[in-house]
Amino acid sequence: MDIKKYLQEKKEVVDSSLERYFPEEMEAPIALCKAIRHSLFAGGKRIRPILSMAAFEAVGGKGEVILPFACALEMIHTYSLIHDDLPAIDNDDYRRGKPTCHKVFGEANAILAGDALLTEAFRLMTSRAAWDHLLCSERVVLDIIHKIAQAAGISGMVGGQVIDIESEGKDVDLPTLLYIHTHKTGAMILVSIQIGAMLGGAEGDTLKAFTDYGERVGLAFQIADDILDVEGTAELLGKNTGSDLSKRKATYPSLLGLAESKKRAKELAELAVGALSTFGTEAGPLREIARFIVAREN
Amino acid sequence: MDIKKYLQEKKEVVDSSLERYFPEEMEAPIALCKAIRHSLFAGGKRIRPILSMAAFEAVGGKGEVILPFACALEMIHTYSLIHDDLPAIDNDDYRRGKPTCHKVFGEANAILAGDALLTEAFRLMTSRAAWDHLLCSERVVLDIIHKIAQAAGISGMVGGQVIDIESEGKDVDLPTLLYIHTHKTGAMILVSIQIGAMLGGAEGDTLKAFTDYGERVGLAFQIADDILDVEGTAELLGKNTGSDLSKRKATYPSLLGLAESKKRAKELAELAVGALSTFGTEAGPLREIARFIVAREN
Repeated sequence: MDIKKYLQEKKEVVDSSLERYFPEEMEAPIALCKAIRHSLFAGGKRIRPILSMAAFEAVGGKGEVILPFACALEMIHTYSLIHDDLPAIDNDDYRRGKPTCHKVFGEANAILAGDALLTEAFRLMTSRAAWDHLLCSERVVLDIIHKIAQAAGISGMVGGQVIDIESEGKDVDLPTLLYIHTHKTGAMILVSIQIGAMLGGAEGDTLKAFTDYGERVGLAFQIADDILDVEGTAELLGKNTGSDLSKRKATYPSLLGLAESKKRAKELAELAVGALSTFGTEAGPLREIARFIVAREN
Repeated sequence: MDIKKYLQEKKEVVDSSLERYFPEEMEAPIALCKAIRHSLFAGGKRIRPILSMAAFEAVGGKGEVILPFACALEMIHTYSLIHDDLPAIDNDDYRRGKPTCHKVFGEANAILAGDALLTEAFRLMTSRAAWDHLLCSERVVLDIIHKIAQAAGISGMVGGQVIDIESEGKDVDLPTLLYIHTHKTGAMILVSIQIGAMLGGAEGDTLKAFTDYGERVGLAFQIADDILDVEGTAELLGKNTGSDLSKRKATYPSLLGLAESKKRAKELAELAVGALSTFGTEAGPLREIARFIVAREN
């Protein structure tokens, strides 16, 4: 299969869904709309919603019922980027080649645009339009939203971000780095795959296989990100490279070296593929995504 | 009935619930725990959860099943205060007599503590422990969470906050002020009452009566807040009075004068009481709260 074509097609589906949820003329204060749209349509790769859709389809899920949940994952991801970029946190001026939200709309609007995206993600997932046509029960929908909140909150993304900030400029060991990676990025990637599978009806051993896949892909993704920060070009990344180094952030390359980091990322991708060994061609996209994630250039 | 005693008793129930959800030794990065606890246990009046519990009991709801939802409302309220106080937004150093979250823990931790509280509110409401023993269906639980997200997001609290910030230092007319008040504070107060009633089984005309009550109480509460900013003492409020004036924020007193504002607040409280005319003593606490809200000193 042509994985780049697959990713592009899925990305377009996600983009047009997000466009429906956040049209230019949405009913909200104009500054808020603009700040939200600036970041939501800044050229994100939509990896989380795509993983979710690929998992959904791998277990036989069909149609557009996954989209509100897939888009909610992207909204939560986007809120986290807006807040991370703030002067008080990472103080980044550019992301994906564009000025960051607070550079264009000011800090107050950026904080509130992030708050709004996080809140609207939960509004979207609980809207009748989102769950009324699902094949799974409302109990499963509540479980799915619970898992997403867990992955985004204290014991997930926000928790990882706090430790990441605390660790800047310090000597960090591998277990701490692993904690940061599995919480800050890993948890949301894992849950994207899990809830995609759950919406498609997966449970028990099937869900366990997707969980194994998700844990490995999540870590591989972050190691690849660390490597790109060293090796990538600013042009392809749309932000300055070497920023981890200049902020004295611990990364896989800084702790293990570039060669060993690349080796681990590839191993993890293959371990992820291995977790899906009982599935047939329906899991093809997930296998290809795992390999693509460690080979990508941005 | 002794409304102060009632409020104190309910506040203690909310406080001990929140203490269970966020104990000192909770599993999370220590800086995050401390920042969250600092703001969550800063002596809030717990008006939103209490309104929710009072509405729940007014329609015959019994027991502790309301608590996860009542506490989630307070968590969302607390997140909004932490973010509002940030230097980029209201830049407040004190709240309830204590230094604000970012003054003690830094801006990054304050932003993330707010993000965490908002996220954990949705985690709490979707946990099996929250909805497994409810008498209402999972569909109603999803509707309730949806209403809360709606009240907190773009078309509610965050939307109101954006317009409030935009309006600072400008001449604001009454419709704009009404928009700010009904969105920034009113929406969350209204939804607190609505979801309390819904969890107790209310629908149709009953829910409509609570909605009428909630809209009126929400606006009365904010007008009373505006009046306290002019007339209250810093000692009782735990923050500087006159802050609206110094920030050139439009308020009811600045637009209508103090006497007319007091008259409107009292009228709204009585209109709120009037909305509950078909209920008996079970709605007594709600009636008393409406009157207390416009007579309070902090």
